[in-house]
Amino acid sequence: MFDKVVIVGVGLIGGSFALSLKAAGAVKHVVGMGRSAEVMARALELGIVDEITTSAQEAMRGADLVLIAAPVAQTGRILQSLLPWLEPHTVLTDAGSTKSDVVAAAREVLGERIAQFVPGHPIAGRESNGPDAAIPNLYRGKKTVITALPENPAALVERVESAWRLCGAIIHRLTPGEHDKVFAAVSHLPHLLAYALVDDIAAKPHADLLFQYAASGFRDFTRIAGSSPEMWRDISLANRDALRVELDAYLAQLTKLRALLDAADGAGLEAVYANAQRARQAWIGAIEAAEPRPSQESGK
Amino acid sequence: MFDKVVIVGVGLIGGSFALSLKAAGAVKHVVGMGRSAEVMARALELGIVDEITTSAQEAMRGADLVLIAAPVAQTGRILQSLLPWLEPHTVLTDAGSTKSDVVAAAREVLGERIAQFVPGHPIAGRESNGPDAAIPNLYRGKKTVITALPENPAALVERVESAWRLCGAIIHRLTPGEHDKVFAAVSHLPHLLAYALVDDIAAKPHADLLFQYAASGFRDFTRIAGSSPEMWRDISLANRDALRVELDAYLAQLTKLRALLDAADGAGLEAVYANAQRARQAWIGAIEAAEPRPSQESGK
Repeated sequence: MFDKVVIVGVGLIGGSFALSLKAAGAVKHVVGMGRSAEVMARALELGIVDEITTSAQEAMRGADLVLIAAPVAQTGRILQSLLPWLEPHTVLTDAGSTKSDVVAAAREVLGERIAQFVPGHPIAGRESNGPDAAIPNLYRGKKTVITALPENPAALVERVESAWRLCGAIIHRLTPGEHDKVFAAVSHLPHLLAYALVDDIAAKPHADLLFQYAASGFRDFTRIAGSSPEMWRDISLANRDALRVELDAYLAQLTKLRALLDAADGAGLEAVYANAQRARQAWIGAIEAAEPRPSQESGK
Repeated sequence: MFDKVVIVGVGLIGGSFALSLKAAGAVKHVVGMGRSAEVMARALELGIVDEITTSAQEAMRGADLVLIAAPVAQTGRILQSLLPWLEPHTVLTDAGSTKSDVVAAAREVLGERIAQFVPGHPIAGRESNGPDAAIPNLYRGKKTVITALPENPAALVERVESAWRLCGAIIHRLTPGEHDKVFAAVSHLPHLLAYALVDDIAAKPHADLLFQYAASGFRDFTRIAGSSPEMWRDISLANRDALRVELDAYLAQLTKLRALLDAADGAGLEAVYANAQRARQAWIGAIEAAEPRPSQESGK
């Protein structure tokens, strides 16, 4: 049970965290902070938070847990504003999509008090954003990756993990570096590729004709190109070392496929396609066996 | 009204065409042909066809319309087997995903009787295949592209188009070359890119770890990598000239994004991402405005 939780950024991610803890009866008082007075007022109106404030001093007084759910590039600035009022028993955590840069910014701002910052990343999302998109079961059956630091006392790590467990999430642990390499491959690169394809097509002189014939396969392939450009600019830059490694590997793969096309090597192309189909089917089979079924995830 | 329609390949595409014409009360007798006795027997059992045969002579006797719904690389061989029994009033058409290669094969086999072959491509599909996946409303509200040839008499083109209209499809006309350029960009390249990404990840030593953290964005992005490797090998080869042009443009785009990452050019990355997001939103808006809504599709 948490007496006081502070959410910095009361949009989809922060708002759903608050609603989940409330639905679990696990928090007495939730305070919302953020840059936009309008968004904060809406979160209060929706019952996501019990109180809103622009005063870090007021927010941090007696806080058990503070979740920073804002674009990763803002983490340092936010921690800077909280630090003067950070009480010894409070644990800080975040929900950023990249971890090495967040940890570096946190170390610079917090110094020795980095021990009180337990970084995290819930692997969940929806197509819509903002407090109106927040739902109490967003994290149910989903993974939350905790990238605990050597300085973190076990009790503080446990407090953060227990909060996510109360939201229905399954806890995974990686180091910040491992996290960033994994997500460069399975999330950051696909986003870059989808944006690249749509921009490529949109720039062609006959773009209107092309879009006219794009169908459901194109729609699914490019769905992630509907994501926030600002957020993905920040993620691309924050994780650019790992992202460049993955992009280079992919460019080498495409160059190989280009050569197979040049050689009209049907067997070579089919081997790549068949391997991909097999790997994807095995993956889908594994997640369907492991995750709750759609009928159990009521609001999706 | 068609007295006799022949379907060569009674899977999802051919089977759904037959079921759609039957549902519209537009055909008296449907004959199924194909390579697999088992598939043909299943199509007969499901009522997709009224008769199955391995005799081209029998199938072609008195046929109004013949639809070839088989992998594009087989079109020439199939036309060869039908040609000796092709009656003067019969119209041949196909459902292949590429058109220039199909037309070239048809010209070679049919000679002057190319006039009786009106090439087509219905833009519809499902994740599953075979006669069990066939449904009578697969084509409702979807596009069918007819790539009529200069030799085709208007009455034969109209007969093919009317059949697709009876299936609920919206007729579009392109030349075979236009068709192949358009679909290289919006369909064939995305398939190659999705296969390439999954194969790339599956080949890494820590593939299991990566797949463990792949989430819904990755799932949608790679859905088309679950498609038939044989079919996409054929399409890649059949349309490789146009596909190479699109692949090269995409490689240039990725090389540009690689340079923006190198330069940590956030504004440059955001411009590409924002342009893609805008273009995709405009496209989604246009198709949602143009296509029948699910609620309007149910009542015929």
